[in-house]
Amino acid sequence: MASTSNQAVYRATTTAPVNIAVIKYWGKRDTVLNLPTNSSLSVTLSQRSLRTLTTASCSANYPSADTLNLNGKPQDIQSSKRTLACIASLRAHRKALEDGDSSLPKLSTLPLRIVSENNFPTAAGLASSAAGFAALVRAIADLYQLPQTPTELSRIARQGSGSACRSLMGGYVAWRTGELADGSDSLAEEVAPASHWPEMRAIVLVVSAEKKDVPSTEGMQTTVATSALFAERAQHVVPARMAAIEKAIQNRNFHDFAEITMRDSNTFHATCLDSWPPIFYMNDVSRAAVRLVHDINRVVGRTVCAYTFDAGPNSVIYYEDKDSELVAGTVKAILGPNSEGWDGAFYERLANVTAPGVSLEQVDSRAIEVLKDGVSRVILTGVGEGPVKVENHLVSETGEILSTL
Amino acid sequence: MASTSNQAVYRATTTAPVNIAVIKYWGKRDTVLNLPTNSSLSVTLSQRSLRTLTTASCSANYPSADTLNLNGKPQDIQSSKRTLACIASLRAHRKALEDGDSSLPKLSTLPLRIVSENNFPTAAGLASSAAGFAALVRAIADLYQLPQTPTELSRIARQGSGSACRSLMGGYVAWRTGELADGSDSLAEEVAPASHWPEMRAIVLVVSAEKKDVPSTEGMQTTVATSALFAERAQHVVPARMAAIEKAIQNRNFHDFAEITMRDSNTFHATCLDSWPPIFYMNDVSRAAVRLVHDINRVVGRTVCAYTFDAGPNSVIYYEDKDSELVAGTVKAILGPNSEGWDGAFYERLANVTAPGVSLEQVDSRAIEVLKDGVSRVILTGVGEGPVKVENHLVSETGEILSTL
Repeated sequence: MASTSNQAVYRATTTAPVNIAVIKYWGKRDTVLNLPTNSSLSVTLSQRSLRTLTTASCSANYPSADTLNLNGKPQDIQSSKRTLACIASLRAHRKALEDGDSSLPKLSTLPLRIVSENNFPTAAGLASSAAGFAALVRAIADLYQLPQTPTELSRIARQGSGSACRSLMGGYVAWRTGELADGSDSLAEEVAPASHWPEMRAIVLVVSAEKKDVPSTEGMQTTVATSALFAERAQHVVPARMAAIEKAIQNRNFHDFAEITMRDSNTFHATCLDSWPPIFYMNDVSRAAVRLVHDINRVVGRTVCAYTFDAGPNSVIYYEDKDSELVAGTVKAILGPNSEGWDGAFYERLANVTAPGVSLEQVDSRAIEVLKDGVSRVILTGVGEGPVKVENHLVSETGEILSTL
Repeated sequence: MASTSNQAVYRATTTAPVNIAVIKYWGKRDTVLNLPTNSSLSVTLSQRSLRTLTTASCSANYPSADTLNLNGKPQDIQSSKRTLACIASLRAHRKALEDGDSSLPKLSTLPLRIVSENNFPTAAGLASSAAGFAALVRAIADLYQLPQTPTELSRIARQGSGSACRSLMGGYVAWRTGELADGSDSLAEEVAPASHWPEMRAIVLVVSAEKKDVPSTEGMQTTVATSALFAERAQHVVPARMAAIEKAIQNRNFHDFAEITMRDSNTFHATCLDSWPPIFYMNDVSRAAVRLVHDINRVVGRTVCAYTFDAGPNSVIYYEDKDSELVAGTVKAILGPNSEGWDGAFYERLANVTAPGVSLEQVDSRAIEVLKDGVSRVILTGVGEGPVKVENHLVSETGEILSTL
């Protein structure tokens, strides 16, 4: 077991994106395998705005236990069954390769050192677990030079975090619920690449910490177990919406895409409210964003923006690039140019916008007041690509943990 | 048509109560007849706290058109199809009596003068239409000395305002959806009188005007037409809950009564949120009340209180008299004794309460803060009786409008 410092350190590094669902994943039919009660669909967000960077490395030099360092802090990997399950699956795939080709180095026998960093603060309230597990799976698969496709790897990432399976691909990604008990057909697949509809944009309205809501009892399994309306959504409402939104994406029909997105967000939060005890994620700031979106669409006279809310009060508003002034420009006018986030990769189009895209006199005044008071920053982004292999490793050639933080 | 002042003025005066549903009425299957998509059930609230007082009078002295004066203001009765429908039905019943007994004065031929007053401010946010139409129908029925039972009269009051049919009786009142197209079997009936379970109390938390939410597009027919989850509630969820809550009332089982009440309020608001565009009635103050109720029940270790929300942010919290200190006492400690409404008929038990019934340290601190900031007054009340015939007429012996305002 003794190792010397001249033994090789193998490394692979990847970035992985955040994704925001437009048909929501909520409810597991198998909590160990992370098998969902319904299919879901998301837009992969650009890594020019938000990304996780992960290096997977292995070496005979390392102490015998696998380790994970996240945002500069060592994690207790042994207590994370989900992380262990992903690593075990990937290692088994590597072992199979090694068993079939004795010339391959026996990486499956070496301890792993995994180092990961997000470029966005936890305070942004964005679920980082999807990008995190996608990056972990992609980085180890690259380290092990596995031949599996992203869809095949999605089966592994899903066991880490359900929605992570959708972050292994770019563009518009469906996660099929599948039918088999072992979950082997519960996989993510690209419905359309980012290049099919590259004009999709998103602005995230991050709710101020001081405006956060009364805490809710969380847990999607509460909804599965107690909501009288949940089964109707899972069995009938979502399948119809999946078919309709895939068609809308194929046709780049923003109106349909937007309406289905908003309706499914509402139905999802309705089943949360219908849970026992009830679960609330949206608060008064969220509802002001809903009102703003409906008001903008009404004033413009066509559907130019769509809201969606995950398990928290932040809103994500989708729009097309050509409507940037109408949508993000109006948000900018409401929040003021000094609010945080008006910079970065997607800012060009908005840099010179000073007047709102729609007259604020035609937007509900109370909604404007609540948004001004309750949104602390925005994140400008858009549809983007899946994980990218990069060379800025977070582990040195000799195995030391590096950091970009 | 000339009349002289020595002709008789016939008068009858009644009070009528407010009712608060525990199984909500939401959605009409016939908008003209006010036929509901589902049965509902309410608790009639005591008229010692809240009541409408209505005098119906008729006289050959009056100008030829029927008139209605509400809270001191003449109403345009001709533009209110619902009011006209109620009056026409009652007049037809009177006409039938007169046709069968020629000794009766021909009141059906005389113009009506109806005067009505609520003893609670509109700002309280309590739907006054139920009490108003129940009082109007009861007063005219008394004026006309109609033999119809309250259940038979509920068919008429329902056409004024759906929930009005439940204010014609005291105690615990069900409104059966009925099956017939003409609505003749869509009637209210007493499930149990107030005396069966007189210990039921209610405290209304009235949300400050400045904390009112972003306005929502209202309308139950929006929900009927657009919610993907609505039919499930109307067809399956409510029938099961009606049977269960009637059993709970028969057995005075507060735990079951409370849980069904809370769950149905949540399901109702879930279908509103699932509407297109979405309808929001609960706001952050409402949700803080939800949290408070769950926290009190958790700390006490049994279900001592239950929230319900109508089409607005005010919460109604039901509890039993024996738990007044635990529930209303805790609310009093949170809002402070100087908040409005700590007086009146139901205050005795709380007059000397200075400490909260449950330790405020065990209640979510953010919920306390939101309630302190967002509730402007309380209304203390309890289960009560149906309409009562009284002699304090709002029309003088000679036909002048009087006022207690």
